[in-house]
Amino acid sequence: MTDEEWRSRASQVIPGGMYGHMSTRALPDGYPQFFRAANGCRLTDVDGNEYIDFMCSYGPMIAGYGHPEIQAAANQQRHDYDIGNGPSKEIVLLAEALTDQVSHAEWAIFAKNGNDATTICNMIARAKSGRRKILVADGAYHGAQPWAARRTNGTPEEDYVHFPTYEFNNIASVVDAAERVRGDLAGIMVSAFKHDAGQPQALTDPEFARVVRKICDDYDAALILDDVRAGMRLSLDASWTEHGVQVDLSAWGKCIGNGEPIAAVLGSEPWREAASRTFVTGSFWYQSAPMASALVTLKVLNEANAPNYIEEVGQHFRDGLAEIAQRHGHGLSQSGPPQMPTVMFDGDTRFEKGNRFCQLALSQGVYLHPWHNMFLSLAHNESVISESLDRLDKAMGQL
Amino acid sequence: MTDEEWRSRASQVIPGGMYGHMSTRALPDGYPQFFRAANGCRLTDVDGNEYIDFMCSYGPMIAGYGHPEIQAAANQQRHDYDIGNGPSKEIVLLAEALTDQVSHAEWAIFAKNGNDATTICNMIARAKSGRRKILVADGAYHGAQPWAARRTNGTPEEDYVHFPTYEFNNIASVVDAAERVRGDLAGIMVSAFKHDAGQPQALTDPEFARVVRKICDDYDAALILDDVRAGMRLSLDASWTEHGVQVDLSAWGKCIGNGEPIAAVLGSEPWREAASRTFVTGSFWYQSAPMASALVTLKVLNEANAPNYIEEVGQHFRDGLAEIAQRHGHGLSQSGPPQMPTVMFDGDTRFEKGNRFCQLALSQGVYLHPWHNMFLSLAHNESVISESLDRLDKAMGQL
Repeated sequence: MTDEEWRSRASQVIPGGMYGHMSTRALPDGYPQFFRAANGCRLTDVDGNEYIDFMCSYGPMIAGYGHPEIQAAANQQRHDYDIGNGPSKEIVLLAEALTDQVSHAEWAIFAKNGNDATTICNMIARAKSGRRKILVADGAYHGAQPWAARRTNGTPEEDYVHFPTYEFNNIASVVDAAERVRGDLAGIMVSAFKHDAGQPQALTDPEFARVVRKICDDYDAALILDDVRAGMRLSLDASWTEHGVQVDLSAWGKCIGNGEPIAAVLGSEPWREAASRTFVTGSFWYQSAPMASALVTLKVLNEANAPNYIEEVGQHFRDGLAEIAQRHGHGLSQSGPPQMPTVMFDGDTRFEKGNRFCQLALSQGVYLHPWHNMFLSLAHNESVISESLDRLDKAMGQL
Repeated sequence: MTDEEWRSRASQVIPGGMYGHMSTRALPDGYPQFFRAANGCRLTDVDGNEYIDFMCSYGPMIAGYGHPEIQAAANQQRHDYDIGNGPSKEIVLLAEALTDQVSHAEWAIFAKNGNDATTICNMIARAKSGRRKILVADGAYHGAQPWAARRTNGTPEEDYVHFPTYEFNNIASVVDAAERVRGDLAGIMVSAFKHDAGQPQALTDPEFARVVRKICDDYDAALILDDVRAGMRLSLDASWTEHGVQVDLSAWGKCIGNGEPIAAVLGSEPWREAASRTFVTGSFWYQSAPMASALVTLKVLNEANAPNYIEEVGQHFRDGLAEIAQRHGHGLSQSGPPQMPTVMFDGDTRFEKGNRFCQLALSQGVYLHPWHNMFLSLAHNESVISESLDRLDKAMGQL
């Protein structure tokens, strides 16, 4: 059965043929919808085409698909004990490891979706303060639950009425937004940096970060960091620590289990009591195998000094792409940290050129994304980057 | 390390020592918090005590912990392909299998939490109708997200302002609740039967079910069945089919992957278009291993005629318990279907006697729950039930 045949069958039993961020409906033709193998940083689609992958499952893969040591730990845990009427000791070991690793964190709660984690942060901020408003950056993605996905259908206004917006990196905007809800401000949610889909990325202005911290201090509100997408790639600490800012609550997901399903809320001491009064749970949140996977993932990331390593190979990729584009006479804008690059052609506001380039890259066996940030990993070594650049040179030549 | 020592370490790094429904804080002393092994219907805690388990992880386990055929399929899939930039063909096979199995269903969407599934049902009902109100039964559990968990801290009123309540099985009440929001009614959410924690259970009055169906028809609203807790135990179809009622949207979770993390929304044809317009997603929702697990789980449940089998062993358990209680002179009230029994002592409104009995049962190696419905499974064969009854006879004798 080909990808086309599976799509046809899918269209009968899945609304629109596929849903959410894994639907290729918003991508140009040529993107495979179904896959059959994953190894290291390579994916094989159902038609047998192999790709060097620069999306890493949209983030979860950070140490390589099928990483032997991580997979062995998860499989051993699954064999011994995965789910039952309580967690295994791994929940304690993982909470200890993460609170040791992340400087603001004194406690942890585990869940399944990144959006579970961001939602729990809101609940804890509100439970502690008795207030309701959580400021969020205009256009930022904090998940697809109704409060976060104000753009989707089926979401009444009340779901986001307590989430007024500010403009990321704009100090006057966040000062003003906080002032407007004075007396009812429970927290301010920030992303690690600006990584809104379909736009160039923007790194966090450290002065902006310090002002947000000060507002939260002045208003006795929670500074909530959504580190779901960027976590463990920029830093093995919370992503705003490098700006000299300690957050109060942080939301994690995607890569902390290297693809095993696990999310986490980490919190500082003053929020512990409120967290213990907030009833949050899910049928699979205590699963032990993803916790065993996360424990070894954390060890592997530390041993490899992952953020530095991934930044280096990402920079190699960025420099190589820039050189190729220049040589072929294309203006290319690369934004965000090298670990999570967004690549756009100058003036290509409708992504027509980007789409075509990504199609050509696919046919050369490189899986890129035309308008979403990409992800690199420990499995992207120098030789893979060089191989990718050779292929992308050909693709750019055909553009 | 003992359970007590792990609890002490947990209290340092997890708010309140444990969170959600797997915290033993609300249970009497003697309940183990941490486990290390699970096989068939038996659990082993970190201290090495073995229990015959009547909670089945609060539902997810339906075919037995570590079921060889199910586990082998999941492990093979994990080896081949679990997560990547798209799903594997298993998402199509599972959507086909579930829409074949469940008579109202023409399409499927998969997620991680049961609460993801109930939330998506709300979004689709609202997207189709353009209306906002979803009626929910007073006291029913549809998950711990803010809209569903109106009793928890950190939840502003707006989160549930569009979820007016009715009384389950009370026809006048649901007719009245619908009438009051006439013009804004998007859907009515129902449980398979009344299984509110801390209360005797109540089976669904078929006439009530038919009236709810008629209200939804009259108001062009969605009849949404939350089959997360009861699904596949009462029926291999949607749980209200036996009442002659076809629902529009159904939410599934817990047991459909026999403990692997997967939830599903199933829908009928008229809701497909709205579903395709509703953006819902999560990082791990396309994971292939839980889908492979669910495919084999469904096959195993069909081959065993699971609802009938589990009902029979559940009835054996119920009859045995009744006989033991009578012989020892205790008035016992057993409610709900035999597959998901709630057992309470007469007049024991504060569960003092129930707590004591459950403690004595634990020390005999039987894991019961004093105020939440329990769960039986395919792993509870006649010999396990007889063994359990022998042990519970001793426990009752000590009461």
